[in-house]
Amino acid sequence: MKSNLTSQPTYTEVTEDDAGWILSNTFLILTMQTGFGMLEAGSVSYKNIANIMVKNCVDVTLGGLVYWVAGYALSFGEPSTPFFGYGNFFVTAATVADTGRQYAHYVFQLSFATAATTIVSGAVAERMQLQAYMLFAIVNTFGYCLPAMWAWHHNGFLGSIGFFDFAGGCVVHGTGGASAFVAAYVLGARYKRFARAGEEAVHYTASSPVTALTGLFMLWWAWLGFNCGSTFGISKDRWKVAAKVAVTTLNGSIAGGIVGLVSSFVVFKGRFNIDYIILSVMGGLVSITANCAIISPAESLIIGAIGAAIALFAIRVIERMEIDDPVGAIPVHFASAGWGTMCVGIFGKNDFDLLKGHNGLLHGGGLYLLQVQAFGWILISLWSALFTAVFFLAMNRAGILRMSLQDELMGADWVEHGVRSESVGNKIEKIIKQMN
Amino acid sequence: MKSNLTSQPTYTEVTEDDAGWILSNTFLILTMQTGFGMLEAGSVSYKNIANIMVKNCVDVTLGGLVYWVAGYALSFGEPSTPFFGYGNFFVTAATVADTGRQYAHYVFQLSFATAATTIVSGAVAERMQLQAYMLFAIVNTFGYCLPAMWAWHHNGFLGSIGFFDFAGGCVVHGTGGASAFVAAYVLGARYKRFARAGEEAVHYTASSPVTALTGLFMLWWAWLGFNCGSTFGISKDRWKVAAKVAVTTLNGSIAGGIVGLVSSFVVFKGRFNIDYIILSVMGGLVSITANCAIISPAESLIIGAIGAAIALFAIRVIERMEIDDPVGAIPVHFASAGWGTMCVGIFGKNDFDLLKGHNGLLHGGGLYLLQVQAFGWILISLWSALFTAVFFLAMNRAGILRMSLQDELMGADWVEHGVRSESVGNKIEKIIKQMN
Amino acid sequence: MKSNLTSQPTYTEVTEDDAGWILSNTFLILTMQTGFGMLEAGSVSYKNIANIMVKNCVDVTLGGLVYWVAGYALSFGEPSTPFFGYGNFFVTAATVADTGRQYAHYVFQLSFATAATTIVSGAVAERMQLQAYMLFAIVNTFGYCLPAMWAWHHNGFLGSIGFFDFAGGCVVHGTGGASAFVAAYVLGARYKRFARAGEEAVHYTASSPVTALTGLFMLWWAWLGFNCGSTFGISKDRWKVAAKVAVTTLNGSIAGGIVGLVSSFVVFKGRFNIDYIILSVMGGLVSITANCAIISPAESLIIGAIGAAIALFAIRVIERMEIDDPVGAIPVHFASAGWGTMCVGIFGKNDFDLLKGHNGLLHGGGLYLLQVQAFGWILISLWSALFTAVFFLAMNRAGILRMSLQDELMGADWVEHGVRSESVGNKIEKIIKQMN
Repeated sequence: MKSNLTSQPTYTEVTEDDAGWILSNTFLILTMQTGFGMLEAGSVSYKNIANIMVKNCVDVTLGGLVYWVAGYALSFGEPSTPFFGYGNFFVTAATVADTGRQYAHYVFQLSFATAATTIVSGAVAERMQLQAYMLFAIVNTFGYCLPAMWAWHHNGFLGSIGFFDFAGGCVVHGTGGASAFVAAYVLGARYKRFARAGEEAVHYTASSPVTALTGLFMLWWAWLGFNCGSTFGISKDRWKVAAKVAVTTLNGSIAGGIVGLVSSFVVFKGRFNIDYIILSVMGGLVSITANCAIISPAESLIIGAIGAAIALFAIRVIERMEIDDPVGAIPVHFASAGWGTMCVGIFGKNDFDLLKGHNGLLHGGGLYLLQVQAFGWILISLWSALFTAVFFLAMNRAGILRMSLQDELMGADWVEHGVRSESVGNKIEKIIKQMN
Repeated sequence: MKSNLTSQPTYTEVTEDDAGWILSNTFLILTMQTGFGMLEAGSVSYKNIANIMVKNCVDVTLGGLVYWVAGYALSFGEPSTPFFGYGNFFVTAATVADTGRQYAHYVFQLSFATAATTIVSGAVAERMQLQAYMLFAIVNTFGYCLPAMWAWHHNGFLGSIGFFDFAGGCVVHGTGGASAFVAAYVLGARYKRFARAGEEAVHYTASSPVTALTGLFMLWWAWLGFNCGSTFGISKDRWKVAAKVAVTTLNGSIAGGIVGLVSSFVVFKGRFNIDYIILSVMGGLVSITANCAIISPAESLIIGAIGAAIALFAIRVIERMEIDDPVGAIPVHFASAGWGTMCVGIFGKNDFDLLKGHNGLLHGGGLYLLQVQAFGWILISLWSALFTAVFFLAMNRAGILRMSLQDELMGADWVEHGVRSESVGNKIEKIIKQMN
Repeated sequence: MKSNLTSQPTYTEVTEDDAGWILSNTFLILTMQTGFGMLEAGSVSYKNIANIMVKNCVDVTLGGLVYWVAGYALSFGEPSTPFFGYGNFFVTAATVADTGRQYAHYVFQLSFATAATTIVSGAVAERMQLQAYMLFAIVNTFGYCLPAMWAWHHNGFLGSIGFFDFAGGCVVHGTGGASAFVAAYVLGARYKRFARAGEEAVHYTASSPVTALTGLFMLWWAWLGFNCGSTFGISKDRWKVAAKVAVTTLNGSIAGGIVGLVSSFVVFKGRFNIDYIILSVMGGLVSITANCAIISPAESLIIGAIGAAIALFAIRVIERMEIDDPVGAIPVHFASAGWGTMCVGIFGKNDFDLLKGHNGLLHGGGLYLLQVQAFGWILISLWSALFTAVFFLAMNRAGILRMSLQDELMGADWVEHGVRSESVGNKIEKIIKQMN
């Protein structure tokens, strides 16, 4: 069947109904910042909770400014090459008539761009200097914008060969995850996080599992705005795709969560570990993001279940590699995202012609789409890893990347923000005394 | 006047505008999970806060899977008898063209189904085993689906005789409330919750009134999605009903809250008790839910005020009966819900022909509608109570219902999840020491 | 160009699409109550956190009832004089057909009215009696309704001369801010908040920066509903304005936040103060609210940046004046709001004829609009200040305004609500012991 929609967001045919849909979902997607903030604040030590919220705030302010100045231009600007756009800097509607389309598209994309950087904040928590993170929030907007262009600009070279990423499973989560991986590696682990010969490891305690779970809940519902909103409208057949995406997204998270509960039950002998629950629901959600529009509800259960299992396996590998990821950003946004990107090539079905004539392996499309997806994921991951490596190594060389040991022990809330709330005040006094 | 809408949600005539409305409200309704989670986490003891959040998570994952597999089929499937449906298992759109209608309807109903189970989690908090609760989350989906079918399926026998429940005041809250009543009764009270001869009662302290009130706020606004979204669209005259429902729902909660403030002022001699505020706002909201579309703003004030008074009275009766309900789920979702269901028969007015020609007692319709509503409420409550009783007694007999005394004293956060956050860790150490 | 929209909300031409937009944004605006509650609860001392949430609850219940009874009638009722309306008391749709328009308009305006009172709750925190605040929540509805009428009623005298306030930068925030200023002044500072000769000042510690920042995040995204929803629809060209407003609102907050980060870096020598971040993001948001529809994205950066700088400067002036504002309500809602109101006259451009033929200073409109805006802001501020002064002085004279010193020291959570949560209980015991 020939489609009357396009698989990639476009702003050429936005109606008033579409605009309402786009804006409402943009508002919902922005609550992901609240969700990520709470999930991370609940997962890190008590002495770093305000700091992690500030980092999420920085993602929106610094990242948002850069996106307005140049990020959107690189991603969606005209004129363009297949590799980057170079128009629409300092985003401003050319004509009054164009106000609606241009701005609705921009603000929706902005909510995606800020999410990509936020993912990294968790992986580098409790030890990266805030100023270095600020620089990263600025430059990472570029790190994200090029993959977005390759996949989603009508002229992008990945999209042209059939690469499909419905809601950013690879473009947002994959870039964020690869970036988090490299960032955590270069930065090194928290103080005595891993046991050394003759020394015991320090046990880091999450400040508040309830706050973390509240953050998970917020992300969960906001994710529906993220995925369903990626229809970029409800006119024509878009509302049908949006309704389907709501079902597959929920099913992915449901299957993921169940895998987490069962795994925890087995591994911890009857106990239900909070980290397992968070990792598996998130793993389900991330793995469904690239493919949610072109799979069936039953397939979404399989994809989410495997995505969660991959996240739970990956966290072990990462631990074994002694890479320190305080909130579990890497297993979810790197590993599960890779799986979800592949799933397009495995389970994809060309309903509404979203796949432009292609089909996945299980629907008679052969290996083509799977190869394209693998190529896209590897390329985007490599780009993101390389980009982050260069930046983090340079910061490290300049000596501004990592907090001093004393600062790390005292916690960023006091060192970077002067926070001495009733709950942390006493502890800091103790640490200060011990140090003198 | 002859209506161009139906009183019960139907998916036969969904437009793109309707789909946008349905999905946006579904996203909002899902935030009720966050709201219930926070309200409950703030109301229980500190040692059980993560556990209650996990229970809310289980409602979505296990409950959601069962609803997709069979719950929706029983509630809204075709073919059907007047008592249950038996088609559309493993919900999947039959044709691509049908994608939008089917999935929008499914996902909206799913958000209702998960809410029904969540209500019970509060009443059984701090003493029910998590594994038993998981089984309950699975089977209760069936407990909820049949009442939903009777009232809302076009073929349901209660709907056929004129039973009206606009947004689930009886179907969702009534079933949840009756279930909570029986569950709390069978389960028994928390350790020394009520004083025995020669022994003092243990005073259970809410972990965080602010968290509970934040949860209340979240529920409050999400309730607008719950009630207004139950128009199941905005096309034709549906948007008019939705706007009216926003006013009556807010008015119901406002009158409820004021009754709570005044009552507390009188009872506690000038003090404003947090539990009173929460119970009364919730009582107002629940009591308005069944009737919000067919009453006037002035009537909604009366209904909400009486609904709150009933909740405040009911909590005393339940206390007197020595039934232990840590978050006040029973007075609100059982007692206020019953009142709200009756109000359809008292205050109902057949605007937009939502009542299919009937009118309530005060609008010249005589006793017919009131009798139907009473019949429906009693039947649904009995069904729900019976269903829960059988399940809970069986679990009890099997010895897997209630936590051991030691586990209960140590708290589910540590026993079931191994949570040893900085805030609870020390206390658990103490309890462990005391025990050895 | 001649417009097919009106600059002020009107309900004469609401379509089903508009209704969906209005209601969805109303739901979002109500989350500002959650946001304000958390921002304030996180900013005050631990002993007053439940109390501040209850105050936000009172704003909706008592304030909401009064608005339904008489507030809407004064603001938007017909018939009307240029100074107040006097119809539509006890808001009820005249005909079934009118249900949609009337109620959608009412409920949207209600969400604005409750916000205006909420602003004051922060400035009077930790020392004002709850009962006095309740009376204020009732009467302040009138304090807010008249400015709203003058600016937004089609017959209002300020609107008639061209005064423009798109989303309540002056009408909501300006009135709230002026009110907060006078209220905090009359009430006096918290116990030993400012140093006296020979005495040290008491250092008041915010209960939880994370809760405050979470509240900021919630307000941030809800603000998009506040500003974008003020198009009062998406039909005709309204969706274009809404999309533009999303961009300018975000840009205003972004520039504001960056000013806060940079200022804090300079003032605190490398530290990023949480209060600075909150004040500056809020300052950016408030200053953009009146003008967001009639400025460009670049101008919104300038407006937000200056608005934040003004808030940061104003907090110093207020401190110097020894006016005690525990959450920084005055600098933001008074000072930044004044700046934002002026910006209409400076940067305003008559796109979509929203300014009814006028233009701001920088777009060739001369001084007319600037003068009108200044006149409106001064008038509304004076009205609000006077209204609040009379009420607060009367309460003071009656001896029911301020908590007793003992109550203030013990905290409102215990004194007014009997809250003895695990976290505050011990502290209260200590205070009680010290007192005996």
